[in-house]
Amino acid sequence: MVSHKVNEIASTAYAGWLREDATVEEMRVGFDRMCPEPPAEGSVTPAQVGGINGLWIRGPWSEGTTILHFHAGGYLIGSPTSHRDLAARIGRAARAQVFVADYRLAPENPFPAAFDDGVAAYRGILADGVDPSSLVVSGDSAGGGLALAVMAAARDCGDPLPAVGVLMSPWADLTLSGDSMSAREPMDPLVSRAVLTEMQQGYLQGADPADHRASPLLGNLAGLPPLLVQVGSSEVLEDDAVRIADGVLRAGGDAVLQIGYEMVHVFQMFADQLPDADRAIDQIGAYVRARVRSAGSVPLTSPRS
Amino acid sequence: MVSHKVNEIASTAYAGWLREDATVEEMRVGFDRMCPEPPAEGSVTPAQVGGINGLWIRGPWSEGTTILHFHAGGYLIGSPTSHRDLAARIGRAARAQVFVADYRLAPENPFPAAFDDGVAAYRGILADGVDPSSLVVSGDSAGGGLALAVMAAARDCGDPLPAVGVLMSPWADLTLSGDSMSAREPMDPLVSRAVLTEMQQGYLQGADPADHRASPLLGNLAGLPPLLVQVGSSEVLEDDAVRIADGVLRAGGDAVLQIGYEMVHVFQMFADQLPDADRAIDQIGAYVRARVRSAGSVPLTSPRS
Repeated sequence: MVSHKVNEIASTAYAGWLREDATVEEMRVGFDRMCPEPPAEGSVTPAQVGGINGLWIRGPWSEGTTILHFHAGGYLIGSPTSHRDLAARIGRAARAQVFVADYRLAPENPFPAAFDDGVAAYRGILADGVDPSSLVVSGDSAGGGLALAVMAAARDCGDPLPAVGVLMSPWADLTLSGDSMSAREPMDPLVSRAVLTEMQQGYLQGADPADHRASPLLGNLAGLPPLLVQVGSSEVLEDDAVRIADGVLRAGGDAVLQIGYEMVHVFQMFADQLPDADRAIDQIGAYVRARVRSAGSVPLTSPRS
Repeated sequence: MVSHKVNEIASTAYAGWLREDATVEEMRVGFDRMCPEPPAEGSVTPAQVGGINGLWIRGPWSEGTTILHFHAGGYLIGSPTSHRDLAARIGRAARAQVFVADYRLAPENPFPAAFDDGVAAYRGILADGVDPSSLVVSGDSAGGGLALAVMAAARDCGDPLPAVGVLMSPWADLTLSGDSMSAREPMDPLVSRAVLTEMQQGYLQGADPADHRASPLLGNLAGLPPLLVQVGSSEVLEDDAVRIADGVLRAGGDAVLQIGYEMVHVFQMFADQLPDADRAIDQIGAYVRARVRSAGSVPLTSPRS
C-alpha cells in the first residue's frame, strides 16, 4: 500500500497554492515554484517553434528523438517552467530533447487558443526539420488532452503524424462523462468534478464542451499513432485514459494502458520522491526508445542549433 | 455508450442459472449450457495432459502455438465445455491449439486441488514436448488467477516459462482488497463482494486467502513472462487486473493492460454478440502472434497426434 505516502507527497506539493480562494495568478506562481530545478547537466533554452514560445530542455542524453510536450494545468495554469523537471526526466528516459510549449492560457485566452497554439507548435516543429518518425507528442492532464487533439488535427489535415504519443493522466473529455468521475471521487485527493468544472468553464467560456478540439476523446480515434497512456487508479480522470486506450484499440489502432495502482493525478511529477513515478517515467522511456527511429549518434544540427 | 447492451447480453446469458438459490450442480449445468457450440470447422478432443483431464480445441487455424487455458467459475463451477467456444475463438485468433484443463473443483476438492492440477497440467504439456517458447498460459476469472499462480510456481521451481501469459478479468486476490471492490460495485451487474466471498469460502474452506497459490497477486510478480491483462471498467475485479499489470511493471517485467470501457466480467464470452468481445479476442491474437515463436507452417506431430 503506497496510498498514504503518495497522498501525503501530493498534498504537500500542492498545499499552499492550489486553493479554492487563490487567484489564477497565485496558482500559476505556486505551480512554477512547486517544480524542482531541472538536473544540473541539462540545459533550458527559451525558443519559439512555429511562432509559439516555449523551452527546449536538453541534456547529454538527447540523441535524436524530439518530444513536443504540452503541460498540465486545466488550460488555466502551468507553464514550461512548472514542467521543466518532468520534461527533463522524460527526455533523459527517452534519450530525447523536449520542447515544452507555452501555449496561451485561459481565461485571458479562451478556447480554442490553446488548441490553435498546439497545432502551430506541432507544425512548427516539423517545419524546423524534425523528422516525424523521430517525433513524440506528449502531454499531461489538460496537456494530454491537447496532445491528443493536436495529433487528431494532424491526421485530419493530412500532416505527417508523430511516431508515438504519450499521455499522462489525460483530460480529454470536458463533458466529464467518465464513470470514474463519480466512482473514483472518494479516493482522488487532487481532482474532482468541481475543480474540472471550474477549469472547463474558464477555458471554454460557453463553447461546446463536446467540441473535439477540447474533448478529443469524443472525436475520431482512428488513424492515430501508437499511444502510451498512463493514469493512476485513484483518479476521477481514470476513465479518460481507459476510454482513449479502449477507443484507439476499437478503431484498429495501437494503445498501451498503464494504470499506477493507487496513484494520483500526474503522479509522474513526484519523481525522486515516489518510486512509482520513476518507474512510470522509465516505462515512457522504454516505450519511446522501442518505437521511435533514433538518429543514433548522429548529432542533430537543427533545431538544436 | 455500450453499457446497456452489454448488461442486457450478460444478464440474459447468466439469467436462470446464476442464482443465489441454485445448487452448485445446477450452476455447473447452467454454465455448460450457456456456451455456444464451438465452430463447425473446429475439433474438440478429450485428452489427459500431465494426468489432468481436459479438452483439446483445434482447428485449421492451429499453426504451432499451444495455449493452456484455465477456465472461469470461482473454483466452484465452469468446465472445458463451458469454455470450448471461448477457447476456439482465442485459438483461432492466436493460430493456436488450446488445451482447456478440467482441474478439480471445490467444494468437493478444496484448495489447493485446483492449483495442484494447474501445475500438473503445465508440467504435463511441457513433458509432452511443447516448446515453452511456443506456449501461452491463459485463463479467465478464477482461471486467470490460477494461470498467474501456475506461472509463478514454474518460476519458483525453475521450470521453463511460457512465452507469454494472457489473463482475462483475473481473480488473483482472494482477500478482496482491491479498491474497485467497492468503487465499481454499483456498476458491476455480475460480480460482487458477496459472490466472491461465497466462492472464496467454498474453495479455501478455512485456508489462508493470502496464500500465494490462491492469491498470486499478493506474491512475487518478478520474473514472469510478458502478460496481456484484459478487464472491464465495470468490474469489481478491475483492480486485480490493474494491480497485476502494475506489479509486474514495478518488478521490471512487461505487462500490457487493456480495459474495456463499461465492459463486464469476462466480456470476451460474448463474442459475436458484442463487438468489444470480438475486438478483445483479436487483440489477444495479435499479442500472442507478435510474441510467440511460431512453428510457422511446420505441422506439429506431438501433442496433436
